[in-house]
Amino acid sequence: MSETVEETAGATVARDAGSHDDGLNRETVERVLAAVEADDHDALVEILDELHPADIADLLEQVSRSERKALITLWGVQLDGAVLSELEERVRDEIVAELPDHVLIQALQELETDDVVYLAEDMDEPQQERILRALDDVDRAAVERSLKYEDYSAGRLMQTEVVVAPEHWTVGNAIDFLRNEEWLPESFYDLIIVSPQMHPIGTVSLGRLMGSARKTRLRELMNEDFRTFRVDQSQEDVAYAFNKYHLISAPVVDADGRLAGVITIDDAMEALEEETEEDLRLLAGVGDEELSDGVFTIARARFVWLVVNLMTAIVAASVIGFFSETIQMHVALASLMPIVASMGGNAGTQTLTVAARALATRKLTASNMTRVIGREGIVGLLNGIGFAVVMGTLSALYFSDHVIGLVIGLAIIGNMVVAGFAGVLVPIGLEKLGVDPALASGTFVTTMTDVFGFFAFLGLATLVLM
Amino acid sequence: MSETVEETAGATVARDAGSHDDGLNRETVERVLAAVEADDHDALVEILDELHPADIADLLEQVSRSERKALITLWGVQLDGAVLSELEERVRDEIVAELPDHVLIQALQELETDDVVYLAEDMDEPQQERILRALDDVDRAAVERSLKYEDYSAGRLMQTEVVVAPEHWTVGNAIDFLRNEEWLPESFYDLIIVSPQMHPIGTVSLGRLMGSARKTRLRELMNEDFRTFRVDQSQEDVAYAFNKYHLISAPVVDADGRLAGVITIDDAMEALEEETEEDLRLLAGVGDEELSDGVFTIARARFVWLVVNLMTAIVAASVIGFFSETIQMHVALASLMPIVASMGGNAGTQTLTVAARALATRKLTASNMTRVIGREGIVGLLNGIGFAVVMGTLSALYFSDHVIGLVIGLAIIGNMVVAGFAGVLVPIGLEKLGVDPALASGTFVTTMTDVFGFFAFLGLATLVLM
Repeated sequence: MSETVEETAGATVARDAGSHDDGLNRETVERVLAAVEADDHDALVEILDELHPADIADLLEQVSRSERKALITLWGVQLDGAVLSELEERVRDEIVAELPDHVLIQALQELETDDVVYLAEDMDEPQQERILRALDDVDRAAVERSLKYEDYSAGRLMQTEVVVAPEHWTVGNAIDFLRNEEWLPESFYDLIIVSPQMHPIGTVSLGRLMGSARKTRLRELMNEDFRTFRVDQSQEDVAYAFNKYHLISAPVVDADGRLAGVITIDDAMEALEEETEEDLRLLAGVGDEELSDGVFTIARARFVWLVVNLMTAIVAASVIGFFSETIQMHVALASLMPIVASMGGNAGTQTLTVAARALATRKLTASNMTRVIGREGIVGLLNGIGFAVVMGTLSALYFSDHVIGLVIGLAIIGNMVVAGFAGVLVPIGLEKLGVDPALASGTFVTTMTDVFGFFAFLGLATLVLM
Repeated sequence: MSETVEETAGATVARDAGSHDDGLNRETVERVLAAVEADDHDALVEILDELHPADIADLLEQVSRSERKALITLWGVQLDGAVLSELEERVRDEIVAELPDHVLIQALQELETDDVVYLAEDMDEPQQERILRALDDVDRAAVERSLKYEDYSAGRLMQTEVVVAPEHWTVGNAIDFLRNEEWLPESFYDLIIVSPQMHPIGTVSLGRLMGSARKTRLRELMNEDFRTFRVDQSQEDVAYAFNKYHLISAPVVDADGRLAGVITIDDAMEALEEETEEDLRLLAGVGDEELSDGVFTIARARFVWLVVNLMTAIVAASVIGFFSETIQMHVALASLMPIVASMGGNAGTQTLTVAARALATRKLTASNMTRVIGREGIVGLLNGIGFAVVMGTLSALYFSDHVIGLVIGLAIIGNMVVAGFAGVLVPIGLEKLGVDPALASGTFVTTMTDVFGFFAFLGLATLVLM
């Protein structure tokens, strides 16, 4: 079970020696807004200088649109580019669209290419062109190359700043080279050893390099058992492999196997959170809305998902309509039928959540699929029998009618077995069709349990009671 | 939107130059089982040598219990300790409980202290004692110290192998020291600069160290603006900060501010996935079951959650029972009432998911709470009006009764507003009470929408139609 959260807004973190910024708290937000209100540029810069770019981004997301605009205007050319790459998409787009070109260009200058790509991909065509033109030639070429790769691919995720060395170098050569290099990437943990054709053939971690004698050849130190990704692999694959194999950085190669860039664990960690978050949202029927989105954007996005739900609810309702005579004769059925449907729906959602995650984390594979499906059926049966006894007894006693107890008991058993199978077969089926197994699974499963639940309960009741 | 998964079992990853192990696929599983069947030790070792410990762990989880036992027995003393720390808890406990002490001790010898702690925490008392006695003094002391910290705390997560240096050292001193050190931790990215009292006062990344002249003092290179964690902070806090501030490693200090260990990003990444996964499961009403758990374990765990659901379903049913006369007179109400409840339930789940995640990622704070709550009410109202028009019209036409259309329309509007407020207020309320906002939120919210939905719909119908 989880720990309770002590406070909000990151204020719990880093209160010790060495942690000079204390995260974002309400008081800081108020001090910033007061400086903006007073149009006091120096006070604003002084407060923002103390904050981590991620905290400034949080702040910008939490204030209102007009406050945000005033803050950005007052901050002016001192705007820190790193803040832009920390923002959620909607706020970032809003700010980027309004920034004067010279401010934006200066902000981008300090960023690594993966962050520039991340910002440039959402700009409109003319703005993107103006901005890219202002970058130096090497950076522009790198950004343009990355933009050619698909969204959410390894090519988009990688940074193109890599540190490479030939295998015949010694540790001394490498260290001297690094010392003379004016500019080293910020996240940099491995030296990539390349062949003359620029194929990665090994990696040497900085720790290893550091711990070895100057005259040792890199060839002797290098780890040949490393993992590479192709530029067109999905970021989901990348995140999965980083997490599973505890990778810190990994080379990315193009179609010819030549080194194109490197992905580091911090990018993979972000991708992992993005993918898990997406599953969680898809299971609940929400898209990629953000907390700062406006009322209409959110209402529209959720409306679409609710339409699907409405249609399935109408199907379930028409099953009920089919048995209206029975209900009229035995009105107790009307109160009991939602219980049958609800137990099935919840049992189905439980199974579904476990199955969708097991597919996403690749724990559910061809090797254990039959066993897992069978097990879900048996779990459904066992719990079905348990709740049939409980609910059958309660209903028989309450309505002084053992037949009604029998009917609801049988319907619950049947519906919970259906829930078990539907919960695991629906996501497996969706994956086989090439669809994300979390997508709309919930609606499919609860439609099945609603329809089956109402049908079994009211059908049995009609047979037995009428 | 997400990419589709091309294949299962990690086979999509790492098929290129340099990736010598190809992940786990069905064929490998079959070859391993054939070797076990044939009792062929050498063949087994040869196949397993080619696999990453994480893949061997996956394999052990996917085969049946008897196959697992046979495999472990045949593998014998060659068992790789890293495999144990990759296993899910149930399978790990099963294997560890059955391993002879000498095999287990040899397996643990190769691991770093954080992994040994991870394994030791689940052993029974006598086994733990026997195993700890076999470790060398330094390691035993470190493991025993870590075991004193609470589960899911920074103290448990950290490794105690740290590389420290005093600030007056030069780059040359540090490099010479590292070269002469026989044993360096496997994950090691920063040198921690400590005061004579062992308080961390700065960090120097290996990249920085590497890129600087030998005579430079560490004092001049060190980053004083780093983050530390206290041993008693929750792993949730740690994961949040690593993800937000893009940390690679961070010192952990004891109550006196003295360096106790270091947490690296790979551990934080695992903790992050654990915490997000937990939220996802709590929202769906499943505990920490594992795919390899047995039928009875799973059935029992899910039963508990379903009991809560049953009780809330009974409350909703009794609301319906209250209006049985109205239903008997107008049986159409029986088919329509689940639609009102279902639309409210789904809208509530959408809001809840967004709100619970926003709390977990600390995007929903005191600064924007009022705005978010108000927005959810308005979104509920807008979508409520939309669906009221659709469903009111459909019902009026289908039953040729505009009064029934009006009744369902009004009930839907009311219920979706309730859903919006309940979806955001329930998790906020739970958090204020110090409970994980994802826990059982779903049941609270859908109970509210069911009860309100049935009550509003049937109550209005009784007023207007009776």
